Amino acid sequence: MSGNSFGKLFTVTSFGESHGAALGCIVDGCPPGLELSEADLQGDLDRRKPGTSRHTTQRREADEVRILSGVFEGKTTGTPIGLLIENTDQRSKDYSKISTQFRPAHADYTYMHKYGVRDYRGGGRSSARETAMRVAAGAIARKFLHQRLGITVRGYLSQLGPVKIEKFDWAQVHQNPFFCPDVDKVREMEDYMDALRKSGDSIGARINVVAEGVPPGLGEPVFDRLDADLAHALMSINAVKGVEIGAGFDCIDQKGTQHRDELTPEGFLSNHAGGVLGGISSGQPILASIALKPTSSLRLPGRSIDVDGNPVEVITTGRHDPCVGIRATPIAEAMMAIVLMDHYLRHRGQNADVTVSTPDIGQA
Amino acid sequence: MSGNSFGKLFTVTSFGESHGAALGCIVDGCPPGLELSEADLQGDLDRRKPGTSRHTTQRREADEVRILSGVFEGKTTGTPIGLLIENTDQRSKDYSKISTQFRPAHADYTYMHKYGVRDYRGGGRSSARETAMRVAAGAIARKFLHQRLGITVRGYLSQLGPVKIEKFDWAQVHQNPFFCPDVDKVREMEDYMDALRKSGDSIGARINVVAEGVPPGLGEPVFDRLDADLAHALMSINAVKGVEIGAGFDCIDQKGTQHRDELTPEGFLSNHAGGVLGGISSGQPILASIALKPTSSLRLPGRSIDVDGNPVEVITTGRHDPCVGIRATPIAEAMMAIVLMDHYLRHRGQNADVTVSTPDIGQA
Amino acid sequence: MSGNSFGKLFTVTSFGESHGAALGCIVDGCPPGLELSEADLQGDLDRRKPGTSRHTTQRREADEVRILSGVFEGKTTGTPIGLLIENTDQRSKDYSKISTQFRPAHADYTYMHKYGVRDYRGGGRSSARETAMRVAAGAIARKFLHQRLGITVRGYLSQLGPVKIEKFDWAQVHQNPFFCPDVDKVREMEDYMDALRKSGDSIGARINVVAEGVPPGLGEPVFDRLDADLAHALMSINAVKGVEIGAGFDCIDQKGTQHRDELTPEGFLSNHAGGVLGGISSGQPILASIALKPTSSLRLPGRSIDVDGNPVEVITTGRHDPCVGIRATPIAEAMMAIVLMDHYLRHRGQNADVTVSTPDIGQA
Amino acid sequence: MSGNSFGKLFTVTSFGESHGAALGCIVDGCPPGLELSEADLQGDLDRRKPGTSRHTTQRREADEVRILSGVFEGKTTGTPIGLLIENTDQRSKDYSKISTQFRPAHADYTYMHKYGVRDYRGGGRSSARETAMRVAAGAIARKFLHQRLGITVRGYLSQLGPVKIEKFDWAQVHQNPFFCPDVDKVREMEDYMDALRKSGDSIGARINVVAEGVPPGLGEPVFDRLDADLAHALMSINAVKGVEIGAGFDCIDQKGTQHRDELTPEGFLSNHAGGVLGGISSGQPILASIALKPTSSLRLPGRSIDVDGNPVEVITTGRHDPCVGIRATPIAEAMMAIVLMDHYLRHRGQNADVTVSTPDIGQA
Repeated sequence: MSGNSFGKLFTVTSFGESHGAALGCIVDGCPPGLELSEADLQGDLDRRKPGTSRHTTQRREADEVRILSGVFEGKTTGTPIGLLIENTDQRSKDYSKISTQFRPAHADYTYMHKYGVRDYRGGGRSSARETAMRVAAGAIARKFLHQRLGITVRGYLSQLGPVKIEKFDWAQVHQNPFFCPDVDKVREMEDYMDALRKSGDSIGARINVVAEGVPPGLGEPVFDRLDADLAHALMSINAVKGVEIGAGFDCIDQKGTQHRDELTPEGFLSNHAGGVLGGISSGQPILASIALKPTSSLRLPGRSIDVDGNPVEVITTGRHDPCVGIRATPIAEAMMAIVLMDHYLRHRGQNADVTVSTPDIGQA
Repeated sequence: MSGNSFGKLFTVTSFGESHGAALGCIVDGCPPGLELSEADLQGDLDRRKPGTSRHTTQRREADEVRILSGVFEGKTTGTPIGLLIENTDQRSKDYSKISTQFRPAHADYTYMHKYGVRDYRGGGRSSARETAMRVAAGAIARKFLHQRLGITVRGYLSQLGPVKIEKFDWAQVHQNPFFCPDVDKVREMEDYMDALRKSGDSIGARINVVAEGVPPGLGEPVFDRLDADLAHALMSINAVKGVEIGAGFDCIDQKGTQHRDELTPEGFLSNHAGGVLGGISSGQPILASIALKPTSSLRLPGRSIDVDGNPVEVITTGRHDPCVGIRATPIAEAMMAIVLMDHYLRHRGQNADVTVSTPDIGQA
Repeated sequence: MSGNSFGKLFTVTSFGESHGAALGCIVDGCPPGLELSEADLQGDLDRRKPGTSRHTTQRREADEVRILSGVFEGKTTGTPIGLLIENTDQRSKDYSKISTQFRPAHADYTYMHKYGVRDYRGGGRSSARETAMRVAAGAIARKFLHQRLGITVRGYLSQLGPVKIEKFDWAQVHQNPFFCPDVDKVREMEDYMDALRKSGDSIGARINVVAEGVPPGLGEPVFDRLDADLAHALMSINAVKGVEIGAGFDCIDQKGTQHRDELTPEGFLSNHAGGVLGGISSGQPILASIALKPTSSLRLPGRSIDVDGNPVEVITTGRHDPCVGIRATPIAEAMMAIVLMDHYLRHRGQNADVTVSTPDIGQA
Repeated sequence: MSGNSFGKLFTVTSFGESHGAALGCIVDGCPPGLELSEADLQGDLDRRKPGTSRHTTQRREADEVRILSGVFEGKTTGTPIGLLIENTDQRSKDYSKISTQFRPAHADYTYMHKYGVRDYRGGGRSSARETAMRVAAGAIARKFLHQRLGITVRGYLSQLGPVKIEKFDWAQVHQNPFFCPDVDKVREMEDYMDALRKSGDSIGARINVVAEGVPPGLGEPVFDRLDADLAHALMSINAVKGVEIGAGFDCIDQKGTQHRDELTPEGFLSNHAGGVLGGISSGQPILASIALKPTSSLRLPGRSIDVDGNPVEVITTGRHDPCVGIRATPIAEAMMAIVLMDHYLRHRGQNADVTVSTPDIGQA
């Protein structure tokens, strides 16, 4: 399959450019009988939507999604679900300047080398605008996982530049524009972002995603391990440069006696594995963490070249997020949900009639 | 496709258990006309082979690979290449004890929950023994990439537990059993491993992999980005818990002006992106780093449960690597080479006739 | 991948029901730089469009296609091409009667057994209305194949019920509503259809498709042979019950000396193979022939059961084609073009640098 | 995926040339817990095996298959099953003559044009020898389908050149070397084959395959319809030039009232559809029929060219089947079983929890 499809039984295929007529995707493989309406998708889309606070791009997009097929009398039919979002607030003139220049740390240069042509308006296909469809598709997976299996997939911002969270409360995550679970850090983040915006610079961030209620057994070793597919899905999100499962890079300096999650009849005593053993879910929470690079669209001048290879100085005007990480939480949740959904269907297909006498101990 | 295949045009499908009759794989999609013999594969296999130093498992496997098809008169024919390695040094009795117990941090518990049955001998399919075929398949990709495109894929150990490298010299990497590029750290690593082995514990490690000479343009956004497929491939290696591309998690606290790799007619001025922009190779070196967890097979007792859910104390005898990271370098190289090979063929298929006027500036 | 995608490098994924809001598809993998506009697709869509003569359904659909992405400044960019056709002439009331009944020879019964729910309006996803998107996607493939490689893909009706063509002239095919190449049979077909329509019954047909200018070498043995993928593609068209390549079923009673296509420096002396040898194109014309069953929507009463299993008598009112074969020619052309396009890209990906000294002799 | 894999959840990937060291395949996705041993595969392999009567090639191959992985203590584990058959009776000298010539109606010419190089020994990868692995893999599918679901997949020869069967008795099929169900035609076939062999010519054949006990609901519209995947699978068998489902090409001249299979509470009243409606199984027997071309390896001289394009006269010595159709029955059964197995797992994956109130009426 070409590169714009993800998933084997629950397959998401998307299209659309930042400044094209519309964004769309096809969700193929959703089981029939799931109650579904636009409202189920709009909630997640609104959480990702630009222009909701002064800390994100001021581009205003309603991001209203239409379900064009696959749902009949309020329920999925098992046939492909076509989704569409019309673009409404393109301002292509903003981008005319850079039509012949390559913005540093953007995909301009690589798209030109790959395709020999590029839609330079707002980054075209390489724009994070594409992630709206991931969130819409992910919302379908999240609803199925929650309604049928009691699985919840939730994320939060754990670090914004130098500001790390210290306290944790799920209830706080949606009380601030950062998806920050530590109420005491919100003000610090706001001040940091205000200063950053003034300076014209941008900053990176860390997002954590957690799936709870995942049954043991999901994942297809040796190549389609659950953690490998999660890494694929999360690293495919714009600006992501690193992925960790469980203890992640802390493993390097861990002893085996320290890292191993011991088992008792009452449950696992720790979760350094992040809920995945041998590429298969263990019944513990699935823990993933990602690093997002700072936005590359800056009004501070940077050295670059033009399409002919001549040196130029690039200044990116237009509307941008000074920290793409701020809006990335719903996207990371969506991708984890899509992976879990796909693996649930694959597992069911190959092992639906497996009976296991060993109890599912879960987390202690 | 089921979970034991990797790659879309250069497809590797493998089989085999730690203590089964043999390991094998099929490499489908290798272009015709490549000179190939067992000797081309054996070199990399020997670098991964167990029992070559006191710091790895003492299991002795010749790991002699046979090419069963796809090569005629010394050259690939474009038909699938069948590879086979017979297992010769199984000692299944070592494992009889744990046939009814789940070793902490092993796949025993999850395999049982997924399949309802498991080959407990040495971990069966979940054993790192499976990676021998990855190295064999990767050797084919590496030879093609090097001979046809001048691409080199090389890795090294950058951290062993608390011991971090400080100096770097490719020439040193193959002068010690750790693939360590810093000659001054080798003795420290040896002492550390000797003490560790005495203690009966294990430790994690970090491996870096670098591909040089990669042309710009490889990668298939938005889901099959080059970095996303690399993350998939590297995270699918046993014991890997984290993957970074370029600056990785250091991005979190980087400013945009600091992270962005500026372009000049003489080349990119830095490589925080790790050679991938927008999911497509930039012509700079591809930089990946992975974290490996400490081995879970320990003779130090750990709490667990048996197949009926009763509490047990587990001690893992048998022969094991106290640090799986030590032998992981050739495996990581192999997986990166397979990804690059697959993406080279995919890119060629879709864009073979693209002409680009912009010069390939590469690294300054 | 789920079942609504076709092709590996040139991938078509579609959605849409007969009476839903819209039909759409995503064409992923089209090479960049191809001049493309809606006009390039509309021509083929109009050839398939209903309501153009009294011999087809009187449902009136403009079938106006919109290109939503993947084209910039008149050229493809290499990113996915989103296509959309809004439904405009649904008359769902026509179908309310059969919401609880299964029409004989329709997919009503099987969709219910597969999904437990069905969109009964006009057959929902199982309606031939879905083929509009195949034609739109196929038009992109046909343009690329013709413009870049000089390949033409053309089809015609070779038999309508008992009426077989005897003469052949490509110029005639578009001079009549049947795609009939034999001018002397057109009147006979019209009279036959008029009588059939009066009787309320329907009839089958045979369509032949020919691709000329196909280079030798396309096809991926052993499972993705060119003829195997053609069989897959053509049999996936609604109402198709048989597929032949070259001599097809006539092979059964052919001697080897009679069937084998001898080679001379001036070309092959015959084409019983239909342009495919060992699953790979030979450079001769690709010849395929398909059988289409008679329409199942009849106003003549038929025995069936309702959703509860009770016996019922079904009469299908509404607007239908008395011979689906009449409009199938552009659909068959589209599917053959999609297969050739996909195999051209796959072949190029794996064998772009192959040099062959043996001349391409083609057809004598 | 490259071209040597078939199936999405039950995936068969094969390798091997006619005169290479060995043939092999990997069956990935077989559910765990199925009792399996070499004996289960050998039966079908022996039915396909050459040299069992004077009517087939005299090449003697034991075709002894080894199971190298995926089975533990007599049961499948859910991990990939590696299968291997060593070649034992190659006589490459037989083929040295034609190393520089292209045999008419063989894949010699097309392989050379695709790959630029070919293993000319016995046709290399294009030899029907490859089908041994299809039969081995198919035997696993057939056992699962029969043991778990009560599905039987059986085939027979319905026509050998001009000799058509008139009577039908499953019990006769294995009482003669032709898989002929009509005892009264066996003698006629033997005489025909003896005369044919003397003449040095070859002949085509027709094989029918029937699957009984298939539940309704298998098939993934719109592209992966059950009949479309069957057409793909059957057309991928060497020498097959045509595929029919149910009434097949007889549909062309059928009226809708005649073709439609009416439903009653007691079952369908006919099966012109061949057990597939809208691409989904109906619960009736699945009926497929294939046409096989006459063998192309003839000792009667034929015109051709050599690798440089010069005219030559080709005579094929060596050992060949004068009618490849004779041994094709087990191969066709295997491919149908693989398709049904794959679709059963896919259907279960996406629709495992669907409940259907409508009774499964089956065939009357």
